[in-house]
Formats: sequence, structure tokens, C-alpha cells
Amino acid sequence: MNTVKQWDRIELTFNSTIDKKHFINSEITAIITTQNEEFEVSGFYDDNGVFIVRFMPSKVGVYNYVIKSNVAELNGITGHFECIINDNENIKGVVRVDETYHFKFDNNEPYYPFGTTAYVWNYQLPEIQNQTIETLSKSPFNKIRMCVFPKHYTYNFKEPEEFPFHGNIKDGFDFDTFNVSFFRKLEQQIEKLRQLKIEADIIIFHPYDRWGFSKMDEKVDFRYVKYLVSRLSSFSNVWWSLANEYDLLVHKSMEFWDKVVDIIASQDPYHHLISNHNWHDPFRYEHYTGTKHWYDHTNPKITHASIQHHDMWFIPFWREQFKKPIMIDECRYEGNVDLGWGNINAEAMTDLFWSILCAGGYATHGDSFLSEDDIIWWSHGGVLKGQSAARIAFLRQIIEEGPVKRLTPIRADGHWDTVIGHVNSDYYLMYFWRNSQPGFKYMTMLDEHHQYKVEIIDTWNMTIETYPEVVKKGDKVQLQSKQKIALRVTKI
Amino acid sequence: MNTVKQWDRIELTFNSTIDKKHFINSEITAIITTQNEEFEVSGFYDDNGVFIVRFMPSKVGVYNYVIKSNVAELNGITGHFECIINDNENIKGVVRVDETYHFKFDNNEPYYPFGTTAYVWNYQLPEIQNQTIETLSKSPFNKIRMCVFPKHYTYNFKEPEEFPFHGNIKDGFDFDTFNVSFFRKLEQQIEKLRQLKIEADIIIFHPYDRWGFSKMDEKVDFRYVKYLVSRLSSFSNVWWSLANEYDLLVHKSMEFWDKVVDIIASQDPYHHLISNHNWHDPFRYEHYTGTKHWYDHTNPKITHASIQHHDMWFIPFWREQFKKPIMIDECRYEGNVDLGWGNINAEAMTDLFWSILCAGGYATHGDSFLSEDDIIWWSHGGVLKGQSAARIAFLRQIIEEGPVKRLTPIRADGHWDTVIGHVNSDYYLMYFWRNSQPGFKYMTMLDEHHQYKVEIIDTWNMTIETYPEVVKKGDKVQLQSKQKIALRVTKI
Repeated sequence: MNTVKQWDRIELTFNSTIDKKHFINSEITAIITTQNEEFEVSGFYDDNGVFIVRFMPSKVGVYNYVIKSNVAELNGITGHFECIINDNENIKGVVRVDETYHFKFDNNEPYYPFGTTAYVWNYQLPEIQNQTIETLSKSPFNKIRMCVFPKHYTYNFKEPEEFPFHGNIKDGFDFDTFNVSFFRKLEQQIEKLRQLKIEADIIIFHPYDRWGFSKMDEKVDFRYVKYLVSRLSSFSNVWWSLANEYDLLVHKSMEFWDKVVDIIASQDPYHHLISNHNWHDPFRYEHYTGTKHWYDHTNPKITHASIQHHDMWFIPFWREQFKKPIMIDECRYEGNVDLGWGNINAEAMTDLFWSILCAGGYATHGDSFLSEDDIIWWSHGGVLKGQSAARIAFLRQIIEEGPVKRLTPIRADGHWDTVIGHVNSDYYLMYFWRNSQPGFKYMTMLDEHHQYKVEIIDTWNMTIETYPEVVKKGDKVQLQSKQKIALRVTKI
Repeated sequence: MNTVKQWDRIELTFNSTIDKKHFINSEITAIITTQNEEFEVSGFYDDNGVFIVRFMPSKVGVYNYVIKSNVAELNGITGHFECIINDNENIKGVVRVDETYHFKFDNNEPYYPFGTTAYVWNYQLPEIQNQTIETLSKSPFNKIRMCVFPKHYTYNFKEPEEFPFHGNIKDGFDFDTFNVSFFRKLEQQIEKLRQLKIEADIIIFHPYDRWGFSKMDEKVDFRYVKYLVSRLSSFSNVWWSLANEYDLLVHKSMEFWDKVVDIIASQDPYHHLISNHNWHDPFRYEHYTGTKHWYDHTNPKITHASIQHHDMWFIPFWREQFKKPIMIDECRYEGNVDLGWGNINAEAMTDLFWSILCAGGYATHGDSFLSEDDIIWWSHGGVLKGQSAARIAFLRQIIEEGPVKRLTPIRADGHWDTVIGHVNSDYYLMYFWRNSQPGFKYMTMLDEHHQYKVEIIDTWNMTIETYPEVVKKGDKVQLQSKQKIALRVTKI
């Protein structure tokens, strides 16, 4: 019997004698059953008469399947396979929402996203791709935002060799025919990330386009989404990002995004994380014009709020508003490009990560330093040039050392100097954001029934110093006007 | 004939033989006429049977007056005086709104406010007061926020010697009897500021109170406002700040503030600048709760928006919303107290000033460093301990060197790295805020018909370096990823 490990993929392959317009008219679905569970799994047409159904089992056991297809020769085929235990410690299953605002893997281990961005690393030359994988393997990042479609944007004008559809910019594209070679490479890339325990936040649509992929017919859009999901959903590390900056795709209505969500919901048997990412600032627009410009993150089919914003002060409010994990997928990148989103210094990128985490959200990094070879991490991958990644690694270590429960912010209504994430009265991570440098701080937030150990964390120099005294609620902790510090306060 | 210089005060003194409850029941008004103008000027009861009417003429000429009073022996008294030209270059008249978003003096010279804060410097020991005046005389600040009532707040628990009303905290206060000695001292303090060309932003109410001044009867409140205005409005450098953090005065309704505005409007013949200063952040509250928490800065009786906020990105929007000067009277202070509003570093305070000015607003500084003698500039005056004042002086010099027109922001909707204030196509001040460090910048904002001189301003080290090339619209200016810089771009 064929075997597959938990959260790996089994690929069921079916040969058809007809190879004509299968991308459009032919459908294949496997009804897969085990014990008390049944999965309806869409397959896809690959190439040369081959149909594929991929499946990612999460539970050990024997699975039986029967094929349903409008391709007569495939309809009714049956078979079975066995799912065995996965002993690869890197493979932990699909990331899920946990405790409303946080994440965990299927195996119940917590997952704390530390994202980065390399939008079209998958379109670069093989040597650059290898360098990207090498860089990621040594980085603190365990999530990457990446596009399916190529990107037309400053520093991104090189013509790709392959596209998701057959064709090229000169002769035009055949939107009836997927370019299987492109998808196979994309799958290899996602699998490499998976082996590195890196989640692939797959950007399905985006506005930076000279090829026409942002303005296809709705019918083509929906077929593309269905095809993409049927090819990729069996990768345990896939997340669905409906779009990067959906609100710059001006041809697409809010209803369009709802329909895409519905298609994914019906095609993805594993219910991977799904979000939609904005460009506009909702405050500017809603407050001053009354116009709604944000996707409705309260939509129950969306698992988390993927937000672009510069002010982390709002995170506790977004938590209350959306009741979902708040993933700040863009908050400006470390770099020096002549573009406002991509030229903050390393101190500011570090400050954003600390601010976001202590406010109860999660953050995504970018590195947009100009270089002579025009390879910029933010878009192409390659190597990291900034100095924030080391500090983000230090922060990740602190977060992962913390209690295996997740930070809840103390809503900082009147408090402009600190942002505090805590776990009940057991653990507090108090970050002095926004250039604060207090001489001392009263520990007003602690529980009066306990004593606490205080550590002073230098977020920039990456040192942790134990405060010489045990502290109680209301005690004064001397801080000597240090800057860029955080306090880790742990119940004794 | 008695003479008075333009924008100085003449004091008309009238003795009454009755000295009883004059603060409550007796009224005195002078009808003052000159050429085609008539002023109705409220006087006040001073002490020992003496009534005073103060008047600040702005035009040269002979003035006649007739007294109206319910004190029979004063009613009908007439007299005259002459206003002569003022040759003191420090005395330029009352500050007015100019060009919607800016300020000028009565003599038409522009006024660019560079504010500071020493809430109760007027309550300190004489030697501290002298030190404050000495510090101010060498500082870049030409506006100071200060309270009439004492302040009950951290670092402000010393009991004052005198109060605006007769009485003390032990025996209680007689709200029917003003303490004239207190007001005379206050007037001396305001006059000292006036001689230093410093505007006194007089805070009429505030919530930090253990004496009961924030919870007086409305009748007492209104009598106090009327008395204050009749004593102080003849000081050319007075501004009326209805409150510091009016929205923390929870016993007072929005209608209350409207009534206070009306009283001031009727009692101040010179129409000094008037504003109301918030504590809450309107975004937090309006956006998430639908509750309106900001005073209506569009009220035509309010001359400018006195705002407490931490995010200068909104200034262009507030300009559009309020169509008035935007005065950021609190944006956090340089210091190291254990309080979120008062512990940013000097770099951040400097950054806020540059951000606010280039965004088309005006800023107020504070210095809240702890000291062994508990004299903290923000509240008590004394000496400045921070390092931002020198940088603010440098900025003031740059602003005052600029064209005698005022900066209009280029609305930075999508631009997170720079804030640009400009004067038509003649002059641009482009500040790289929010930790930006671009390698270069394209001069897209310039007029295509002109050539420009570029200077690179190091806002922290206070240097100005001329860029070696003349630039045109679209040219690339090399910036070598410098931080804390601004560009001054001037039409050749």
C-alpha cells in the first residue's frame, strides 16, 4: 500500500487519453474517506493528459478514495493509501489560529510568526533563489510573503522567463492554458520553504502589473484561484493572502474578494490561514471622508487581519475590533530606497517588531537596501543587508523562551511610553517604545500577591541584565534613562 | 494729556468709597472712542475701593472715554488720553491668524510660534521665577503655556502661597473674593514675558486640582473668566486657552465651553487668540466608539486648533478639516519622568518639531527631566536640561530665514518617509521623518520651469551643506543614507 507521512503530500496521478482544453472543461475530485472523516479534494489537470489529486493527511490511518470526474475514463476509479506518523520535527502541520489572537500548528506547538518579504524571489535566477534559501535558513524568519504573479515596480522591470499562463508579453497570454512548468517550480520553492519550517504567505493577486494579470476576466480569475488552490493546498506551509494591497486593484469590487474567499473555502479541504492585505490607511479615509476602505476583517471566512499600517498604537484596538490575530504585514522596511515604505533605519525596524509583539500582534520584516546588482531582498531575495534581522532573532528567542501562552496587551490608552504584553499575572514584557528614556518606572501593572524577577533587555545591543532587586507591585525600578530597552518581568 | 504707546496698556483708576462685595455686584465699563471706532471695555474691581479699566490701543490718536457703572459715584466719569507710536521693537501688537493656517502680529510681521510649557512657573519661589525668565530670554521659545490655577499632579504637591481666590486649602476658599495680590503678580509675570516677545498662552481651567477650582459653581466659573479677561486682555501677548485637557474636566459639558467662549468674546475687545486643548485622542474614541471627544475646532469663535496628539501625519488632514492654524500644544516632552508624555529623548523632540513645522503646523516643547530639587521645567520653569532646545533654535532660524510666507504641506498620503512644506514653487523644506535614511531622493515635487539650489540640513548636528549641483524637477539628489536630515530647496 502507498504510504504518506502526516502533513506530507500524497499525489494521486491519473492518465487521460485526451489532452485538450482540460484546464477549462475537465474536473476531477477525489472523495477521500478514513474512519469517520470524508474529504472532497479537488484535483487539477497537470499536463500531457495527466490529472493529479494531491492530499495532505493529518491523521494516521488507512484512507480510501473514489474519483469523480467529467472525464469519463477517470470517473469511478478507486484506491487507498496509508498515512503513517511523521517523525520529521520540522513538519508540524498547518498553522491555525489559537486563543483568538495567536497561532499554533496542528500538532499543538505554538507558532509565533516572524515574517519577511521577498515578493518575487521565485522569479529570480536559480543561483539567487539558492542564495535566498541559504539566507532564510540562517535568519529568524519563519514566514515569507511571496507572489504568484510577477511584479512590475521600481527595481522590478526585468522580464520573467516563465509565467503562470502560457504566453509572453510580446505575443500575449493564453488565459485558457496554465503554464504547468511555472507551477511545478513554484511548488518546489514552497517545498523548500516547508523544509526550513517557513510558512509561505502566497499572494494571489496584486496590482503591480504590466502583463494583464491584474485585469483578467473574472471567470479567468476564479479559474486561476481554483487551479492554484488545488495545486498548493496540500502543502502544509501555505497561507492564502488574497492580495497584496487589494485596494489598489481598482477594477475589483469588494464582492469580488468575497467570491475569492468562497472559492478558496470550497477548494481548500485543510482551511489554511487566509487574509486580505490593504494599502490605504482606514483612519485617513474613514475618519475624514466617511468612505470605507478596509476589507472587512471581521468576515468569518478570513482567519486573521493582514494589515499595512505605520502606527502600532492601534493594535490593541484592532484586536478588539476584529477578534483575530493581528498580523502587521507591512509597517515599513529597513533600507535606503527612495520610497517611503522602504527606507527606515535598523533601529526603527527593530522598534517596530518589539512594539508590535508587545502590543499583541505579529510582524513582517523587509530589507530594501539598494545594491549594485539590483538584487533587493524585499523583492528578489538574495542576501540580507540590514542590521535588524539579528535583533529580530534576539526578540524571537525571548518570545519563544516566554511562557507557552501568548502576549495580551495592556491597552495603552494614556500611556505613550510603554507597550506591555503580558500572560496573566505571570509574565510581562514591557517595551519602552517611541524613544522613551525614563529614569525609573513604577511597576504598577503587577499582581499584588506575588514577587517578580526583573530583567532589563537592551533591544539593540541584545543584552539581558538581571535587576538586582526582587520587585513587587508598585515598586520603582531604576532605569537610568536608558533607551531602546524592555523589561521582562517574571513571577517568582 | 496721559499718553500710552501702541499695544502698551493705559490704566484708568477710579476710587469708590464703598468697598464691599464689589467683586460680585459692581460693574464698570468704559466706552472708549477714537475717530470712527468705539470700544466697550470691561473694567474690574481691584482692591480697597479701587476700580480699574485697562486699555490697549493699537492705533495712534486721541481717545475719549465715558464710564458706565452701577456704582453711582463712578457712572458718567469722562476723560481722554493719547496713543503714541511704539518704538519698542519687541512690541508688535496682538498675534492674529494669518493666511488661514499661520500667524502674524498686528504690525503685519509674521509670527512663527515655537512654544514651550511651564504650567505653574508663576507659582514658584521668586528666585525660580527669575531663573525661568533668564532661561526663556536665551531660549528659542516665543510662546509659553501656563496656568492660572495651581496644579495638583506628580511632582506638584507643594502647597502654593497664594491663590486666585481668598482662602487656603485648610480653611477653604471664598469664591466671592478674588485674591488681587495673586493677579497682580500674574500680571507682572505676563508683562515680563511680553518684554521678551513671548506669548503667554493662559490656561483658564484644568483638571489637576485638589483645591476645588475645577469644580466651582458655573456662576463662579463665569465670574472668574470675566474677571480674568478684564484684568489680562490689555496685555498684547495674551492667548486664551480655555483649558488644558478640557475633556478631563468631566463635570463640564461641551455647552459650558461654548459659554466660556462667548464670555471671552464679549469681554475681550482685542480678540486675542483662543483655543481649547484636548486630552483624548479623537481617533481612538470616535473611530471605535462613535463618541465624539474633541472640542469642535471648527467653531468660528475659536481661532486655532490646540491639539494634543502623538502622530504628526494627521496635520495636513486637520488643516483641511478645521481650516485654522494647527498648534500641536502637546506631542510628548523631552525628559525622563515615569510618565508617557514626558520621557522622549532629544532626538525625538527635535524630530517632532521638524515634522510638525514641515507638515504646516506649529509645535510646543516641554522639558521634563527629573532633578534633585524637584524643579522640572515642564511645570516649574527653572533651567532647561534637555538637548532639543538648541535644535529647535536652529529650526526656528531656518523657518525665519525662509520666505516671509508660510509653509503649506504636500499631503503625504502615500509617502511615509518625508514631510514637505513649501511656498508655492519657490521654496521647499523636505524633512526625512520617521527614521528615514534614503540613499537618494528624486526631486519630483519641483516646478519644471525652474532650477533650484539644494541644501542638506543635518537637523541634529545643526549643519547646512550646499549640494554641489543645481537641480531640476525629477533630478536625483544623492543622500548617502544620512539620517535626521532635511533638504532646503530654493528656486534660483
